[in-house]
Amino acid sequence: MNGAESLVHTLLACGIDTCFANPGTSEMHFVAALDRVPGMRCVLGLFEGVVTGGADGYARIAGKPAATLLHCGPGLANGLANLHNGRRAHTMMVNCVGDQATYHRPLDAPLTADTEGFARAVSGWVRTATRARDVGRDAAVATQAAMTAPGTIATLILPSDTCWDDGGVVAAALPVPPPSATPPQRIAEIARLLRTQKNVLMILGNGALRAGALADASRIAAATGAKLLAQQSNNRIERGRGRHPIERVPYFGGPALAATKGTEHVVLVGARKPVAFFAYPGQPGYHVPEDATVHELARVEHDLSAALRALADELGAPAVPPPVLPRAEPASGAPTGEAVGQSLAALLPEDAIVVDESVSFGRGLFPLTHAAAPHDWLALTGGAIGDGLPMATGAAVAGKGRRVVTLQADGSAMYTIQALWTQARERLNVTTIILANRKYAILLNELANVGANPGRTALDMLDLGNPDLDFVRIASGLGVEGARAENMAQFNDLFARSVTRDGPFVIELMVA
Amino acid sequence: MNGAESLVHTLLACGIDTCFANPGTSEMHFVAALDRVPGMRCVLGLFEGVVTGGADGYARIAGKPAATLLHCGPGLANGLANLHNGRRAHTMMVNCVGDQATYHRPLDAPLTADTEGFARAVSGWVRTATRARDVGRDAAVATQAAMTAPGTIATLILPSDTCWDDGGVVAAALPVPPPSATPPQRIAEIARLLRTQKNVLMILGNGALRAGALADASRIAAATGAKLLAQQSNNRIERGRGRHPIERVPYFGGPALAATKGTEHVVLVGARKPVAFFAYPGQPGYHVPEDATVHELARVEHDLSAALRALADELGAPAVPPPVLPRAEPASGAPTGEAVGQSLAALLPEDAIVVDESVSFGRGLFPLTHAAAPHDWLALTGGAIGDGLPMATGAAVAGKGRRVVTLQADGSAMYTIQALWTQARERLNVTTIILANRKYAILLNELANVGANPGRTALDMLDLGNPDLDFVRIASGLGVEGARAENMAQFNDLFARSVTRDGPFVIELMVA
Repeated sequence: MNGAESLVHTLLACGIDTCFANPGTSEMHFVAALDRVPGMRCVLGLFEGVVTGGADGYARIAGKPAATLLHCGPGLANGLANLHNGRRAHTMMVNCVGDQATYHRPLDAPLTADTEGFARAVSGWVRTATRARDVGRDAAVATQAAMTAPGTIATLILPSDTCWDDGGVVAAALPVPPPSATPPQRIAEIARLLRTQKNVLMILGNGALRAGALADASRIAAATGAKLLAQQSNNRIERGRGRHPIERVPYFGGPALAATKGTEHVVLVGARKPVAFFAYPGQPGYHVPEDATVHELARVEHDLSAALRALADELGAPAVPPPVLPRAEPASGAPTGEAVGQSLAALLPEDAIVVDESVSFGRGLFPLTHAAAPHDWLALTGGAIGDGLPMATGAAVAGKGRRVVTLQADGSAMYTIQALWTQARERLNVTTIILANRKYAILLNELANVGANPGRTALDMLDLGNPDLDFVRIASGLGVEGARAENMAQFNDLFARSVTRDGPFVIELMVA
Repeated sequence: MNGAESLVHTLLACGIDTCFANPGTSEMHFVAALDRVPGMRCVLGLFEGVVTGGADGYARIAGKPAATLLHCGPGLANGLANLHNGRRAHTMMVNCVGDQATYHRPLDAPLTADTEGFARAVSGWVRTATRARDVGRDAAVATQAAMTAPGTIATLILPSDTCWDDGGVVAAALPVPPPSATPPQRIAEIARLLRTQKNVLMILGNGALRAGALADASRIAAATGAKLLAQQSNNRIERGRGRHPIERVPYFGGPALAATKGTEHVVLVGARKPVAFFAYPGQPGYHVPEDATVHELARVEHDLSAALRALADELGAPAVPPPVLPRAEPASGAPTGEAVGQSLAALLPEDAIVVDESVSFGRGLFPLTHAAAPHDWLALTGGAIGDGLPMATGAAVAGKGRRVVTLQADGSAMYTIQALWTQARERLNVTTIILANRKYAILLNELANVGANPGRTALDMLDLGNPDLDFVRIASGLGVEGARAENMAQFNDLFARSVTRDGPFVIELMVA
């Protein structure tokens, strides 16, 4: 057995049965091994950002890692932005990066690059295999590292001779330690704080945003008067009718500081102290009052559901039913943010997965969809645009037929538009809504913040017209059917039909 | 004057008047400054790979650097693959990477990443500016570094407060030292070698592949019997009718070793000892005979034209006229590699720029086009596919109306397909020939080398059909007209018409 075969067998033994791939020459032995070893689903991406973003979306839904197959330093580099997003989401992932043979690397062939250096910045675990007989063990350790709470990106670099040499040994799965428990003393301290203090804001992130954890957080809030907010960007929120809604810390400083105004105590639950996405002259860096005291109930690597349950029990807080929210009707008229949110709330199918890279236009879509059918909401976590279409692709693979609805800004869509081809190839149930305002709207807003009265040069750099992008044609060229909607009636019709058909569909929604 | 304005003024003072840009929030002060300071041509890319590849192509033709404008670590990461290619081409480039404010970086906001780490692996010069008053000086040093022979990628990281703070100081251009001269003793040594030894192979790279240098190299070859070859991948070769043709070291080991067989002495002229792109079991790493002695006439940072001229003079070698090659007629019939090469040789317009990312199908196009009208040939230098369309875009900007002809493999085209939009926006004279074989042909060949009898899983991972990509529709969605050619008559007609029209055109040539 060569190293490549031991790798495939070991990944399967560790429970990894899906591989997002963009292979190159140095990965041919891995490709051949995949052929010989049954059981691994290979999903091809035409660009590495699709591969890593796909693995990100997959893990968020599957609750276990996918593998990726990438080609040398530059192939890894093409996937870095979505690995950055995955890192911020604590995504479990095992990257297999084929690279120059150990003895060929010193010759500095043209494609040779600093593969380890690229990997290190985005990975919680990096190793370069050095011989075939260790590849299986390396893969088992990589998977263990990836799956250890809170989850991380593990990157295993595989010089080609470690793949083709004989002597591969299949490794068994290594035990994954359970997430740490929050010490009872910590639970008691936070309970005391909540009993004795007013103006407490609990900020929830990661596993604290699953339905059960949110129900317990709601018990705590109801019993103590504490306010609840989710982090600004979250890997997965379970929400919709019958679940406890939660608002997020707003993106911009003004609204964020308004939302946290008066807070004297911040309690973090698997969340980080809210930080401004960027600095602005004279503006505070954190989005909670400067004199608020920050406490931590549990860190992201803890069992956050258990911590919230224990805290609610410690407080003797009774269960509270989720609010009954009025059902929405599909909106008519012009496609404003409010109208799109209303139609989504009305038409989102049961058990959908929403992938949110809607950027400027979509800021209001989240609060408007609390009353939609139960769904998962996956958002861009690292701010590196170009994760939406790939994440939707991976989420659809993991979702096994669940409908994925991608809320996708047009400028951001163009970073990894190749993902649509993979959706067509894999016949994935993805409805992509391109929110086409034909500009980098967020940047126009930022330019205004700079205080400039923009002239032609500046406006040209933020303008996606000239020529207009035609997403229906682009999608068609990539094998995905689509149609344009100019008003809400057209949108409602296209959307409702799209979610009942098999396979992907693109709606280019013309918005202002 | 703020730091951003001092940056723009300084770049202009240093002769940089073109900026390939994909700005984000942290670059808004730079965008505003570009608005206030006239003179910089800004070329927008929808993805950073287009930006860095554009700057690569620009510098190869302009002979001076362009600036790039990139957004934080992840934006730089998206441009790394083409920076890798540019590094291998010794491309002059000044990257301006906006980043978190100095005092905001420690707060680790979501988009914060290891910007310096990403930059270091691909840049010959990296600096993070620390205050507004130094930004001008930093930009002048960056430009000097980029332009110092043999040329390099300089990356200046600009925390946003260094851009918005007042106190910017415009810096004057710093002197760029001339390329080093090869010592006369070295010239004499190599002359002695050429006079006394047989079976000498001179391998030329970089500046040794300009028309004048090739004429002097041909004098040397004619006078001494030395054989000439160009490196496998080259940043720019001046060639075509009236110039001295040169073959390249073949890509694959077998043909490369056949081409260098019998060589006893290798003389490198701005080139590296030919190395295999990848290792293969039992195959040698270098593509010259193991017992050949390697000499170096001049390194890439030397004045290579002067070295060849001095060597030819030292040898007393008379001038030799370039060969008169028979004019080709456009080919008919099926679009084989030979046919496409023949038609290109016949139809390439005078003073064209050919950008070659033709990979498998196009290996034969170079030798078939020696007799084409005079042109520049730019090739992928670092093996990171996805440079072709961006490089063509940048070359067209620098070419100021010269026709660019891109020989583009279909799989590779999909890495940075967004470049077509920039071509449309800037109305660039680019004819893109997509060589559509609907598979990763190079990898099928590599898989065969592995000795595997590929099954469904392996073949699926190398297959670009299912669904078929439709490049005419994709191009149309990006604002570029195109048409499909199924045979050479259609190709000849589309090609001939495309090179006489203003603006870009895509020919999807269906090849086997």
